[in-house]
Amino acid sequence: MLVALAGGVGAARFLRGLLRVHAPSDLLVVGNTGDDLRMHGLAVSPDLDSVAYTLAGLADEERGWGLAGETWNVGDALARLGEPSWFALGDRDIATHLLRTRLLAEGATLSEATAEVCARLGVPVRLLPMSDQPVETRVEVDGPGGPEDLGFQEYWVARKASDPVRAVRFRGAEAARPAPGVLEAIGSAGGVLLCPSNPVVSIAPILAVPGIRDAIRAAPCRVAAVTPIIGGAPVRGMADKLLPAWGVEVSARGVAGLYAGLADAFVLDTVDAWQADAVAGLGLQPVVVPTLMRTVEDAAALAKAAMGAL
Amino acid sequence: MLVALAGGVGAARFLRGLLRVHAPSDLLVVGNTGDDLRMHGLAVSPDLDSVAYTLAGLADEERGWGLAGETWNVGDALARLGEPSWFALGDRDIATHLLRTRLLAEGATLSEATAEVCARLGVPVRLLPMSDQPVETRVEVDGPGGPEDLGFQEYWVARKASDPVRAVRFRGAEAARPAPGVLEAIGSAGGVLLCPSNPVVSIAPILAVPGIRDAIRAAPCRVAAVTPIIGGAPVRGMADKLLPAWGVEVSARGVAGLYAGLADAFVLDTVDAWQADAVAGLGLQPVVVPTLMRTVEDAAALAKAAMGAL
Repeated sequence: MLVALAGGVGAARFLRGLLRVHAPSDLLVVGNTGDDLRMHGLAVSPDLDSVAYTLAGLADEERGWGLAGETWNVGDALARLGEPSWFALGDRDIATHLLRTRLLAEGATLSEATAEVCARLGVPVRLLPMSDQPVETRVEVDGPGGPEDLGFQEYWVARKASDPVRAVRFRGAEAARPAPGVLEAIGSAGGVLLCPSNPVVSIAPILAVPGIRDAIRAAPCRVAAVTPIIGGAPVRGMADKLLPAWGVEVSARGVAGLYAGLADAFVLDTVDAWQADAVAGLGLQPVVVPTLMRTVEDAAALAKAAMGAL
Repeated sequence: MLVALAGGVGAARFLRGLLRVHAPSDLLVVGNTGDDLRMHGLAVSPDLDSVAYTLAGLADEERGWGLAGETWNVGDALARLGEPSWFALGDRDIATHLLRTRLLAEGATLSEATAEVCARLGVPVRLLPMSDQPVETRVEVDGPGGPEDLGFQEYWVARKASDPVRAVRFRGAEAARPAPGVLEAIGSAGGVLLCPSNPVVSIAPILAVPGIRDAIRAAPCRVAAVTPIIGGAPVRGMADKLLPAWGVEVSARGVAGLYAGLADAFVLDTVDAWQADAVAGLGLQPVVVPTLMRTVEDAAALAKAAMGAL
């Protein structure tokens, strides 16, 4: 059994490639819920849904997020009613959120709701949230009018990551517990993969849930991480704005430093091959391969390289 | 100030006509909430919304219910997810329900949520639910497999009123209180109108809220009711299936009998002019006019006739 720690779109693409070279029944994905939010009263789990939609073959490949064939009529009507419109939810996506919100309101845990949603969507792998307790990624910024404490989606979607970041925190993490099955899966895993996701706001929230980092350290298997940074810039997202807030260089070796002591191998891009010695110096086996996932074949080759390091 | 007791679409059409001949600021509508339901976790108030959409000029006149320009993408996606599809909710309509559901979840009463929804929609009159407490219209039927106790929408929408009706009850009515403002409005009204709505499942639930019937009886003004039955059949809906369950003839005079002792005047159609004596015999002043509302002008003329009896 492989266990993969996953953020959103980048992880989803990697995992789709992984499923070209690995059996779905032998993969368990632990997803980030630090970006979750309530919007219009709906329980929205953007990263879980990115993984679920992509692995169910329902994702919009052109737009890069959300569902294919999506429409926006509910959101337009909500905007006409004076409701906030900065976080766009498609109509089909809202159906997912209605189902999840109802299940949670009826007493299901997020794990149980996620399992049900995945079954209904036809997701071929087991997807667990990192925790059933809320863990909220908060971004402290220097806003136009002074310091502000923003929810992640406010920082990223509403404010477009335009504010200088002072700190990133995971509110509630200390009181959270790993979702049922997470520690057991890691403890018996044949390998653990850290997907090419934002290390600060996708992987770190998962590792911030007490017990998960220790379980990975103690796991009877190797651990490989895949860089989300190529040539000093993130493929997508705002890791370049967040890594400096933690004093980390925006580079493959910078990310590798965050995983030192946790991972055994680090997959970095050929354009960053010159950083392989630094990665090795951090105690991680460098694996230098092309990491840009333009196609599912690219993703499959990358996944194969990462699995080769396990 | 006029007070109108209203069900759904028939009442909405009548009220739209009324606003051609009466100032919106001098009208308060008390709406039926016995048909309310939770669907996909959303708080749906079909009758309140029919009135609100129609009076805001947003209703679909062709289809006869719901919003103009409606689409059905969320419902289609929910059906693909395996969720029930028997109660169709349009995308724009769902935006209304999301707003109401959020307000209720945040602690608003149904009155407060209704006022907010109406303000956002641009409804020009004050619309109050009959009660802030849940009152649920239940229909006991002889189902295919024996007696069943159905929610009104299950009986009407899911089962298409196909089951013989044994009884209609208003669950929770005895513990409900009139919404704030209802009794005060009736107590100081210049006239009370019972809209041309189903007497069993639209007007009776309102009258079943303790205090409302007595307030109308004690009101210092006249009370006029408008028939929903023309020539022995309802213009729309299933009153013909429900009136017999209460031992009431499906006719204008049958409905008038339900309002005897409550209303002072009863507006019936010219085709039913032969029943005027029976209506008078029940103690109600018969007002015989055309009552079919094909156009808003028809509705305005009907409303004017009803107001003339106040």
